[in-house]
Amino acid sequence: MAVVQQVVDLVDILARHGLTHAVVCPGSRSAAITLSFARTNSIKTVVSIDERTAGFIALGLALELRKPVALVCTSGTAAYNFAPAVAEAFFQQIPLLVITADRPPEWVHQQDGQTIYQGGMFGGHVKKSFTFPVDTVHSDSSWFANRISNDAFLTAAAIPAGPVHINVPVREPFYPEEGERLVPGRNRLIESLAPLPALSVQNWHRLQDEWDEAEKILIAGGQGQFSADLVRTLAQITEEWEVPVLGDVTANLGNHPDFISMQDVFLDESAEDSLVPDLLVTFGQSFLSKKFKAFLRRHPSVQHWHIGIETHLVDAFQSLTLRIPLSPDIFFSKMLEDIDYKRFVEKDEMHDDSYKQKWLTKERLAARVVNEQINGNLTLLNDLTVVQKVLSELPEDVTLHFGNSMPVRYANLLRRLGLVQAVWANRGTSGIDGCVSTAIGAAMATGKPVCLVVGDVTFLYDRNGFLIDDFPANLKVVVLNNGGGNIFRLIDGPRRQPELTRFFETGHRHTAESTAKDAGLPYFAVTDVGELSGSLSNFIKTEGPAILEVFTVPEENARLARERAERFSQARQHP
Amino acid sequence: MAVVQQVVDLVDILARHGLTHAVVCPGSRSAAITLSFARTNSIKTVVSIDERTAGFIALGLALELRKPVALVCTSGTAAYNFAPAVAEAFFQQIPLLVITADRPPEWVHQQDGQTIYQGGMFGGHVKKSFTFPVDTVHSDSSWFANRISNDAFLTAAAIPAGPVHINVPVREPFYPEEGERLVPGRNRLIESLAPLPALSVQNWHRLQDEWDEAEKILIAGGQGQFSADLVRTLAQITEEWEVPVLGDVTANLGNHPDFISMQDVFLDESAEDSLVPDLLVTFGQSFLSKKFKAFLRRHPSVQHWHIGIETHLVDAFQSLTLRIPLSPDIFFSKMLEDIDYKRFVEKDEMHDDSYKQKWLTKERLAARVVNEQINGNLTLLNDLTVVQKVLSELPEDVTLHFGNSMPVRYANLLRRLGLVQAVWANRGTSGIDGCVSTAIGAAMATGKPVCLVVGDVTFLYDRNGFLIDDFPANLKVVVLNNGGGNIFRLIDGPRRQPELTRFFETGHRHTAESTAKDAGLPYFAVTDVGELSGSLSNFIKTEGPAILEVFTVPEENARLARERAERFSQARQHP
Repeated sequence: MAVVQQVVDLVDILARHGLTHAVVCPGSRSAAITLSFARTNSIKTVVSIDERTAGFIALGLALELRKPVALVCTSGTAAYNFAPAVAEAFFQQIPLLVITADRPPEWVHQQDGQTIYQGGMFGGHVKKSFTFPVDTVHSDSSWFANRISNDAFLTAAAIPAGPVHINVPVREPFYPEEGERLVPGRNRLIESLAPLPALSVQNWHRLQDEWDEAEKILIAGGQGQFSADLVRTLAQITEEWEVPVLGDVTANLGNHPDFISMQDVFLDESAEDSLVPDLLVTFGQSFLSKKFKAFLRRHPSVQHWHIGIETHLVDAFQSLTLRIPLSPDIFFSKMLEDIDYKRFVEKDEMHDDSYKQKWLTKERLAARVVNEQINGNLTLLNDLTVVQKVLSELPEDVTLHFGNSMPVRYANLLRRLGLVQAVWANRGTSGIDGCVSTAIGAAMATGKPVCLVVGDVTFLYDRNGFLIDDFPANLKVVVLNNGGGNIFRLIDGPRRQPELTRFFETGHRHTAESTAKDAGLPYFAVTDVGELSGSLSNFIKTEGPAILEVFTVPEENARLARERAERFSQARQHP
Repeated sequence: MAVVQQVVDLVDILARHGLTHAVVCPGSRSAAITLSFARTNSIKTVVSIDERTAGFIALGLALELRKPVALVCTSGTAAYNFAPAVAEAFFQQIPLLVITADRPPEWVHQQDGQTIYQGGMFGGHVKKSFTFPVDTVHSDSSWFANRISNDAFLTAAAIPAGPVHINVPVREPFYPEEGERLVPGRNRLIESLAPLPALSVQNWHRLQDEWDEAEKILIAGGQGQFSADLVRTLAQITEEWEVPVLGDVTANLGNHPDFISMQDVFLDESAEDSLVPDLLVTFGQSFLSKKFKAFLRRHPSVQHWHIGIETHLVDAFQSLTLRIPLSPDIFFSKMLEDIDYKRFVEKDEMHDDSYKQKWLTKERLAARVVNEQINGNLTLLNDLTVVQKVLSELPEDVTLHFGNSMPVRYANLLRRLGLVQAVWANRGTSGIDGCVSTAIGAAMATGKPVCLVVGDVTFLYDRNGFLIDDFPANLKVVVLNNGGGNIFRLIDGPRRQPELTRFFETGHRHTAESTAKDAGLPYFAVTDVGELSGSLSNFIKTEGPAILEVFTVPEENARLARERAERFSQARQHP
């Protein structure tokens, strides 16, 4: 039972490091791991039969808890079903402890069941990959297991956070004796103090000089969690220094009226060179707006600083010149404290022609175009309007999850979202494979209301999330059923192919109704404009979880997308 | 459009090599690949939105067609969802051509959507992993792409067959112009003649001498496809030479009355040493019977020959002494032709005490015990009896697919299955993650009736198979709903833990009804012994696909398993 003891000790060490949640999938070889988690009072367990779903539930939990969550499965292909969530966690820098039971190495590829090559199976998508010692005769083995257990937690949690794989070869017997207690040994805990990133005075002076010299500075935030301090600092910067601050809805920058967020409407191919910054200052992770990325790749800034603690060189705009390893909060507040950037304020007293005003003019034009669509006479159900109406009914403290690919893009068109402080989407890899389960995990970790908005394909893909036993009471799900992968109808390439419906849009006859019924959740369907308001209201008022499915018209979504582009183009020419 | 041309040429080359089926998943970066398959008349395409399901559908197709099948997805985590099927294909030696669209290498890990590290992502679970050239300025690039296209097909198909990964980095534009035709170039086809494995005369003499000297020879077949020639030869060997021939249901050895198949009942811990062979001769892939493997590991034979063309050294019984790189058909027929093995026939005229008779005695005892259970008065619905009754109603030419973990084990207890020539189960890795989709793929490839028997957890896990549009008309699905992962109740370890229900068996409230309804399939439920016969008959008589769900009693399944062991033990002591 030596390996069992190591596993008991692993879980003990994780719990003492502060781990509080584990998602476990059934299996025999993983039994000792499962039982160790199940019998640790400070750890809450979630059981999922589908490992793919389990992976994303763990991701959602870790996202919301902002600390590592454990994920457990038995040997074999089970572990491969974690891979999509592991990759998403890696690119979104979310800490996961992926603990996979394995056969001992000598039994791999020997035609025994549930055995694959598990060592290093997640490739470059984990921060580290460990394999537990299988025989524990030598005392160094215990030292090794203890060190792995500590290192795994510390590595997953260290910024930039991410998934870590612990592969645990297990020999029989897998189960403790009937009534046997699992008692942790006296395990040494290895802690690690968090580094406080700082810069030398010389470096600060360099940054301040260069900032001060820049004519046009653009601050742009990628995906990230809401930080009240950061948002306050950025607000002050845009107000006092007239520096434009831009962020997608996934940047969670709040709702300052001067912040730019409609870039995905107005940065079309005709966007003026005058919007190009001399100094681009970015922070956070991926940018949602394809048009923003394309614009800056077409018109690179002379300098591009990226603020953040990163181990990988990301040059998303092909213009990076300086990496600044600080948290954005610290960087921006220090800049605001130390320098007095008056370039625009002095030069353009009227502000009308300032660099920031140029951005704001476009922003307001774009917002007007979108608002006209939202507030227009609703004749056909369409995704954008439905998302807007849903959001307007939700409580202020809601956490929003959006599916890929279109729902999060619709959210990005709605400035009202600034009222919400937590907007999530799986934009690490932008897959549709776990959007439902991610929201389920997140809802489990918070007492606040959570609302997920997904398309029908994404919903169906990940419907196994609904197989779990304790569906969170605070999760409401809105399905935009536009009869397939509507994005393919919105972009020119596939729309023009005769194969559109069958191979790209993949129209289908499925709805969310049966899934709701099977999971015992109230279900509301809207097939007609007249039903929307009443059903939506009943859906919101429902106590506990519920599913609202709105059948929107795919051609209408496509028409509105074209109309937005045309109307913005017209408005730009005749403001 | 250079990459598009390479992709058109790839599909042209695959089609000319004889590829006839492709499973494609929707995506933009993969558009040229998809369109090339869709527009090749000789290739039948299947569309699946869930890549995990798609992978197993391709596996089922390739299993039935006995040749490579293509599998296509877009970039990002989509490809990781193929991984469970790729691993199963690798260990079961089934040829797949996994074609994944990718971003060009310079865009990996640059925070663009749907981008992960795809090169080599399937690790040791593919025979080869290729990456297409992304820029095709130099003429060597076309040569390279042509060579990869040929090599990929040849490698996947070469025995031992298996999956091959072709990663295709694609730059925009992804789609051809409206109305643009995709015309293959003049592509060079590289063929490869199949080697005819043979042995030198000296080696044959050595084998024949050693065979002739062996006192007790046991022939045992692992998982494999039915071969009429092989089965005829083995029948002759067991009849004329009194050499026992053993095979699990997945060995597809037909129903010769002298063949041994009940080893999973009678090879308990008390099995006699007298059953241990001097020379064990195996062929095929994995063995299903855990007891057979355990018995031979406890009592290794002096010599163990494995017949088959393998590249990996598998020593599943820890007794291998000689690998013989021939197909079993050739090996056994040559032995039968060349030597005159009369050891037992001469020595034991009565045969009662011969080595083969010892095996047969146990076999008959075990069969009697199982038959008593099957033919006994049915008071509570149980899995074994249901499987037997279903099988007895099916047409003779049915192809059977069994889910892991218990259904295939029940099948292994039923000698009647010998009448069936095609019994399948995903025993490469023994996962539950794709049993439904594998059967769907197999049914698509054959005109004959196919019946899948799965447990409820396996059914739910892989229910996304039912999302496909053209559900095969020749597939019937039987769900043994024993309220969770019943295997955990059948084995001692988990049964004794207080966590049995929640963490191992994972009892749930789901049924197959909604899945049937959503897929538009007739659904029959049996909750009571009295309903079984009528519902079963209606289910079988239904034209087209249908689902039969039988609610069996988990405790009864566990009781019968214990009873089988006890009764066999009694019968052994007092035959």
